[in-house]
Amino acid sequence: MYVGIDVGGTNIRIASFEELNPSGKRKVIELKTLNHYVKDFNNICKVISDLTKYQVSGIGIDIPGVLNKAKTQILNANNLKSWQGQSIKNDLENKFNCKVVLENDATTAALGEALFGKGVGKDFLFIIWGTGIGGTFVHLINNQVYTISSELGHQIVEWGGVLDTCGQKGCLEVYCGGKGIEKRYGKPAKDLTENEWKEVEQYFAHGLLNILTIYPSELVVFSGSVALNQKNRLANIETIIRDRLKIFHVPKLLLSQYGNDVALYGALGLLKK
Amino acid sequence: MYVGIDVGGTNIRIASFEELNPSGKRKVIELKTLNHYVKDFNNICKVISDLTKYQVSGIGIDIPGVLNKAKTQILNANNLKSWQGQSIKNDLENKFNCKVVLENDATTAALGEALFGKGVGKDFLFIIWGTGIGGTFVHLINNQVYTISSELGHQIVEWGGVLDTCGQKGCLEVYCGGKGIEKRYGKPAKDLTENEWKEVEQYFAHGLLNILTIYPSELVVFSGSVALNQKNRLANIETIIRDRLKIFHVPKLLLSQYGNDVALYGALGLLKK
Repeated sequence: MYVGIDVGGTNIRIASFEELNPSGKRKVIELKTLNHYVKDFNNICKVISDLTKYQVSGIGIDIPGVLNKAKTQILNANNLKSWQGQSIKNDLENKFNCKVVLENDATTAALGEALFGKGVGKDFLFIIWGTGIGGTFVHLINNQVYTISSELGHQIVEWGGVLDTCGQKGCLEVYCGGKGIEKRYGKPAKDLTENEWKEVEQYFAHGLLNILTIYPSELVVFSGSVALNQKNRLANIETIIRDRLKIFHVPKLLLSQYGNDVALYGALGLLKK
Repeated sequence: MYVGIDVGGTNIRIASFEELNPSGKRKVIELKTLNHYVKDFNNICKVISDLTKYQVSGIGIDIPGVLNKAKTQILNANNLKSWQGQSIKNDLENKFNCKVVLENDATTAALGEALFGKGVGKDFLFIIWGTGIGGTFVHLINNQVYTISSELGHQIVEWGGVLDTCGQKGCLEVYCGGKGIEKRYGKPAKDLTENEWKEVEQYFAHGLLNILTIYPSELVVFSGSVALNQKNRLANIETIIRDRLKIFHVPKLLLSQYGNDVALYGALGLLKK
């Protein structure tokens, strides 16, 4: 059995797969994140044992944070402070005596799309538009998938604009991220009026146009709660970009094939590399 | 003998090299661009014959424009209209009976820096800050140099701002490119006052910060007439970025090792691929 784990600030999702391919048989179990490393680790281990009866061939796991270069340790995890400095890779290896691959969450989700979703066989940009806004550029070179992490949510769309938690002013994320929207409008994204959405869409279109001119992509695939729950927004944003972007064609803007599951598939995909 | 040709809208520079390395013996001859394809082609051929006595092992040539995928034809060259639709690669191959490699000018200059300059052995971003503003991302993967062209000068730093010749409004290039500066301030970049430069530097810093967040680079190498002739501007821009960029360290900003010659070295480098 193979195990894929998607660790988020709110939930931890754990899936078992019979093959190195998500189209086969799989089970998914969801846990609440306690943000207490030892308790979270023990809970994860219990689920893995239950799902696999200790017959584990490999574990792929993603984390919402920055890893060290060797990808063994968590250097920084803003929404998961108690995991910082922990060696989850070694801890899982010692417990289950199998191959464990650790990766950043945005990169893992992009890999899921690249290996099993709408990005198969293609170069594309994967954007997570959720609480925050992040992205990963995916390249196919000699049939190998290469990923490059982007902090595209921290580009500045208003010089000297609203202060972001990162310390910068006027970041795209402050105007369009789920958390930024809630702070700015005093309500969650789902409750915005059409006029409020128009503002958000314009900021997002501005940011996306900048991304496309700086790093041209023919396909952009979206995941994340805001994008997945507000499906008509992408069409509106595409309309604005079609009007404003003159130097080349507007690329395809698609929603991820697997929604939030794409990160679990990516975690499985980590074991294929 | 090897030949490198850098075709610009104003001048055509042609160099002969004894080896596939610019540190050996070389001669450079500069021609005026007539923007008349047949006359330009004949002038180029005459210089190549004089320099090499028809002993040509290969010719690398760059063009300020967009090429077809096979890199044999010029699809679009805004500043060199009469060259559009021409097959300079085949024409030179027929004339000199040798390998000819054609590439875009920004990509070629970046390659020169990657193979022989400050980018050797590194991933970096190459920015040409001249009449316009363009760039190329350079990656080393398995010791192979990969280049990705960027239209970074057409990111939007003022939504709904000044109209650019590309049809977009508020592009970085309108505020900071040599041509944009001349139009905006009624004088060339070299004559701007310190206060006018402050405006230009702030726009450029905004654009560069966006580039760095969207596509993180640890090294940025600059070429182009504005950057090369205003050497203290990069230090001022770095100061602004150091103040504004919070999510990671400010990368090194360097001037190209070879100034304008980097494109000639890149043209030679095209023959190494």
